[in-house]
Amino acid sequence: MKNTFGNNLSVTLFGESHGTAIGCVIDGLAPGIKIDTDYVNACLLQRAARSDISTPRKEPDEVEFISGVKDGFTEGTPICILIRNTNVKSFAYASLDDTPRPSHADLTAEYKYHGYQDKAGGGHFSGRITAPLVAAGAIVRHALKGLGIEIGTHIKSLYNESDRDFTDYASDIAYLERASFPTLDKDAEKKMKETILLAKEELDSVGGVLETAVISMPLGVGEPWFDTVEGVISHAMFSIPAVKGVEFGDGFAITKKRGSEANDPYTYENERVITTKNSGGGITGGITNGMPIIFRVAIKPTPSISLEQDTVNLSTGENVKITVGGRHDPAIIHRARAVVDALTAIAIGDLLVTRFGTDYLACGRQN
Amino acid sequence: MKNTFGNNLSVTLFGESHGTAIGCVIDGLAPGIKIDTDYVNACLLQRAARSDISTPRKEPDEVEFISGVKDGFTEGTPICILIRNTNVKSFAYASLDDTPRPSHADLTAEYKYHGYQDKAGGGHFSGRITAPLVAAGAIVRHALKGLGIEIGTHIKSLYNESDRDFTDYASDIAYLERASFPTLDKDAEKKMKETILLAKEELDSVGGVLETAVISMPLGVGEPWFDTVEGVISHAMFSIPAVKGVEFGDGFAITKKRGSEANDPYTYENERVITTKNSGGGITGGITNGMPIIFRVAIKPTPSISLEQDTVNLSTGENVKITVGGRHDPAIIHRARAVVDALTAIAIGDLLVTRFGTDYLACGRQN
Amino acid sequence: MKNTFGNNLSVTLFGESHGTAIGCVIDGLAPGIKIDTDYVNACLLQRAARSDISTPRKEPDEVEFISGVKDGFTEGTPICILIRNTNVKSFAYASLDDTPRPSHADLTAEYKYHGYQDKAGGGHFSGRITAPLVAAGAIVRHALKGLGIEIGTHIKSLYNESDRDFTDYASDIAYLERASFPTLDKDAEKKMKETILLAKEELDSVGGVLETAVISMPLGVGEPWFDTVEGVISHAMFSIPAVKGVEFGDGFAITKKRGSEANDPYTYENERVITTKNSGGGITGGITNGMPIIFRVAIKPTPSISLEQDTVNLSTGENVKITVGGRHDPAIIHRARAVVDALTAIAIGDLLVTRFGTDYLACGRQN
Amino acid sequence: MKNTFGNNLSVTLFGESHGTAIGCVIDGLAPGIKIDTDYVNACLLQRAARSDISTPRKEPDEVEFISGVKDGFTEGTPICILIRNTNVKSFAYASLDDTPRPSHADLTAEYKYHGYQDKAGGGHFSGRITAPLVAAGAIVRHALKGLGIEIGTHIKSLYNESDRDFTDYASDIAYLERASFPTLDKDAEKKMKETILLAKEELDSVGGVLETAVISMPLGVGEPWFDTVEGVISHAMFSIPAVKGVEFGDGFAITKKRGSEANDPYTYENERVITTKNSGGGITGGITNGMPIIFRVAIKPTPSISLEQDTVNLSTGENVKITVGGRHDPAIIHRARAVVDALTAIAIGDLLVTRFGTDYLACGRQN
Repeated sequence: MKNTFGNNLSVTLFGESHGTAIGCVIDGLAPGIKIDTDYVNACLLQRAARSDISTPRKEPDEVEFISGVKDGFTEGTPICILIRNTNVKSFAYASLDDTPRPSHADLTAEYKYHGYQDKAGGGHFSGRITAPLVAAGAIVRHALKGLGIEIGTHIKSLYNESDRDFTDYASDIAYLERASFPTLDKDAEKKMKETILLAKEELDSVGGVLETAVISMPLGVGEPWFDTVEGVISHAMFSIPAVKGVEFGDGFAITKKRGSEANDPYTYENERVITTKNSGGGITGGITNGMPIIFRVAIKPTPSISLEQDTVNLSTGENVKITVGGRHDPAIIHRARAVVDALTAIAIGDLLVTRFGTDYLACGRQN
Repeated sequence: MKNTFGNNLSVTLFGESHGTAIGCVIDGLAPGIKIDTDYVNACLLQRAARSDISTPRKEPDEVEFISGVKDGFTEGTPICILIRNTNVKSFAYASLDDTPRPSHADLTAEYKYHGYQDKAGGGHFSGRITAPLVAAGAIVRHALKGLGIEIGTHIKSLYNESDRDFTDYASDIAYLERASFPTLDKDAEKKMKETILLAKEELDSVGGVLETAVISMPLGVGEPWFDTVEGVISHAMFSIPAVKGVEFGDGFAITKKRGSEANDPYTYENERVITTKNSGGGITGGITNGMPIIFRVAIKPTPSISLEQDTVNLSTGENVKITVGGRHDPAIIHRARAVVDALTAIAIGDLLVTRFGTDYLACGRQN
Repeated sequence: MKNTFGNNLSVTLFGESHGTAIGCVIDGLAPGIKIDTDYVNACLLQRAARSDISTPRKEPDEVEFISGVKDGFTEGTPICILIRNTNVKSFAYASLDDTPRPSHADLTAEYKYHGYQDKAGGGHFSGRITAPLVAAGAIVRHALKGLGIEIGTHIKSLYNESDRDFTDYASDIAYLERASFPTLDKDAEKKMKETILLAKEELDSVGGVLETAVISMPLGVGEPWFDTVEGVISHAMFSIPAVKGVEFGDGFAITKKRGSEANDPYTYENERVITTKNSGGGITGGITNGMPIIFRVAIKPTPSISLEQDTVNLSTGENVKITVGGRHDPAIIHRARAVVDALTAIAIGDLLVTRFGTDYLACGRQN
Repeated sequence: MKNTFGNNLSVTLFGESHGTAIGCVIDGLAPGIKIDTDYVNACLLQRAARSDISTPRKEPDEVEFISGVKDGFTEGTPICILIRNTNVKSFAYASLDDTPRPSHADLTAEYKYHGYQDKAGGGHFSGRITAPLVAAGAIVRHALKGLGIEIGTHIKSLYNESDRDFTDYASDIAYLERASFPTLDKDAEKKMKETILLAKEELDSVGGVLETAVISMPLGVGEPWFDTVEGVISHAMFSIPAVKGVEFGDGFAITKKRGSEANDPYTYENERVITTKNSGGGITGGITNGMPIIFRVAIKPTPSISLEQDTVNLSTGENVKITVGGRHDPAIIHRARAVVDALTAIAIGDLLVTRFGTDYLACGRQN
């Protein structure tokens, strides 16, 4: 199902960067879930361009609920979200038609859509299309909060700078939710911002690694084959245009350990079974074990850079140089965290609705 | 769709390690695809236990085609594959019922199936269940060969030992297809085997990283959102019980590069557009660009080890020690490559059938 | 997948009768399909209220393409269609909140959505929600025309009046496409309209049977089990709120025949195999046989009538009488044919894309 | 998803009539559901050939549980069911290869599978393939019984003979469950059997109408669009090879009524809202209203008849006569009821699991 994610709680995404509007349809959400528009806007703000470390494009990203919401609550019917495109300038991209930008989807879009696609601003491939995803995710995430399930993402590393690890999950997640630049360590934030500004100055870009924690997941969610928690979450994450890797728990580093170090021993704590460490990232055999779900996604450096690059001219059949004008982000990782949070909420929401039925996400209905 | 993978070419998996049989149903495969049983058996042999570096369990893994195959060709109807379980000893696991093995699915299976699951030999969670997947994948992979699409996987690293990189893809893949231990470098093979034997001697286990290449993929396959090539392949890979990470192209390492290093410049070669390097792993914007698809999966050390470990007794509510008897693999990575190859074939086959229609995989029908 | 229909060509429907707008997202449509807005509007006009035999609600039903369409062609990305609600009067329905209208979805909506649903004008259950379906279907139907596949629906019977049978399919379908009241016989039209007006006069309503023909379907489309052509089409048809029966070929009447009368003998005609009659309705074993696909759907009388009816008051727990005010259609069957045509196009389009790949519907791209 | 039915509770069907075995995989069934093999066998017996009114083929239809069942209970993992083909005679059909039997799938199978299909005994299209469906359905139906939900089907009419209507649903359903020939009226049974024998004597066949009732369905199940209860059930029913029509409640007859007669008035009974009649068949707006779900399916006369028929020879390109030898049923309607019951259970089970979560069907676990 091409532009739809989710089996029982699903999101269908549509829109082009420079079209009338972008949006999505969320289906399968229980009736009676509160729509906290302040929360939705706060999440959108985390995704939006902001400050000197990002592109100057500053759209209000005003969310319009076309359907499925009444008096501030979900109705249980499909919710269509629209975000109008108000600040559209196509000219800066106009010359790129025949000269695909390296590591952008310009060329593969041509292979797939045979020239019928809207190329302006990246069209349907633009990072801008993630805005409605963030809005949809914010609604689901707010419902998860009603069940005690919290999601938080920080920049684990950016280029050569690193943040500290999660220590107390609950308070770290609460902190990140309010942080405009998502690091747990103030000094890391400072160094990362300097790194971004330096890349910008040099007309270049940087990427990094985002790390996400999900706490208070119910036990026994996920499937042994195919719809493992890892499989469902990674499927969602790789939709984010810049993601090139996803790992859970110790991830790739676990391959440098022996079984005796990698295994997570069990113990009783307050009459509950826990593991004394969490190399498995909260998932065993594809199924939640009650420990925090931990995963990291690799975000490549933004491919839009102002440095001259080698490419081809598809009309003339010649090798040419390209210098990409227009608005660029020297880094999008601090904005991407909002998308990771949102897709995590949607993926986990779908797993929960599949396991516990349609009305489960509305258990916190009274809130 | 729980134990089913794929939208248009799908595999439904069933069976328990110590039940009558394990198997799968492959649906959506065109009529007229040749079933090369030698090839299927060769793939199964790569997955099967073998030599002193693996468990002594040596089942013939004889494949029985229950349906969908006639006179050595697919009929176009669902193919049911059965593999009988012939060498079953449950007693070694009998004592584990109340003491879940660390980092096995014993405990999460209990959470999910409330005690009704077959626990013997890992039941439905056993690595053994991958055998029918390998058989199914072998059929699809053989059909892909008819279209010129080749898949190959080597052990990029095992614990602290590394293999060389792919150089010439076509010949490296051809070499790996015949290799019983999948490294490109003979010296790496020797060192890795020593590492495995040492771990075995010390009652421990090791893991590693598998790297896969897919060549000659058609252009323009995959979707910008959700059903990206990365999303579909990673969803499949995370079904393999030991996988904790998946990365494409430069993967996590790309986060240590700037955009100017990370981007893949275009150039003309023999009137085709290629990229002069392949940090993107053959995929841009979720869609194939004609370069080899490259990805790596992290395989954790086998959780079954003979060393004493901490766990709990679910009946008594006490913390206890466990020493796991039974048959153990000190490493499964060399066997897991057959599963990675198979799931890659199935994932890619599904993307192709979705794009080009039901009969596409039978284009090499005459072979 | 709740409000989504279709596996590879899919439509996701959203909206409430008296909300801001209603709409849908069409995904899986090839790039390069011409959007003939005149044709879309003509189809919408057939669905819209018109003349003295229908409700006076006359909305322009202006279609806004939010995404997926550029320069009059599909881009290949998801198409979001919006139709604004402009002529909304909620007051007439206001008193119905506690007294569910017999054979409307008022009460079952309450069971499902626990009071959070928008009740005005039937909300998400309103027949009005079919307008975006008609627009989506018109786009697909126009693409099918490019492949020579034509769809036509007439009122086979209305209450006690009947139309003649299809004779020459091609010319009958062409005639119906232009007919504002879809009967093949002029006299039948006159009698049916009188029947509707009489029902209206008596504050009552009538239903009838629609019969659809699809010609020039490719051979061998559909599946033997589950996704039979009949199964897929009937699944779509029963979405139309008033449909209570679907039958193919001779339908229920075939149960009054013996096998020797019911079977369709084969013969050669112009070197093609045809059947000398078509009791099977163009489908054998769930798969197209090249004869016209013929099916009929039973449309119940509109449940909105002005006569007094028995119902309950959910607040007081008493049995009460209800007289439904507001705007009523004494018959909707002549309008429903536009929805049947549209859903037929979508269902058949999905079967074709599944069989022949993504680009198949754009084969008539040059047109 | 071709040979798979169901979103959350799914059945994947495989096998050819004269292959090694036929079977299916049921996925999504909760752990802890009792497998009552007597009940499964009783349902299979209702489907099996029996007495002088049916074909002499008498297979034991012995069900083998390959996976997913332990100690008489579902494990929660996929259940693979196999039924061996033991009484296979292909020769009687051997001459039919080039001369497709009228109204059988022989010719459309050729269009779809290009000659690679197993033609013996109808192959994958054979009515025999419904046996594993009946076994799967019996398991689900038994679980539904634990929730109080009962399903019963009788022959409403056979050729020109009719049965009486349902009167007391609970006792009528209980009666039908034990009846080998499913009529509510003894005299109707006698006349229908005579009708079948007469058709047999004259080398011909007959069909009829099956009517099904489902009682004690929970309120508020089903979706307003697409996955309506009617849409899901009809999708399932049209898989049965002989079905040409499906109608709910008053069905096609409702088109001869006015709204005032067709509408179902509400009233209170024991503090529950009921309708005073049930023209809607227990479903309003696609959603269950608590009244019995009632539907009818039209079963065409068996296409296998011994009378001479017109067909073509695909090799010679000539029109020829055919006389079909082999084993024939002069009627299959009394056997088809077991398949209707089974598919009803599966369809309803899927709707319930989707609505209330994975474990819902095991609520009667203690039984």
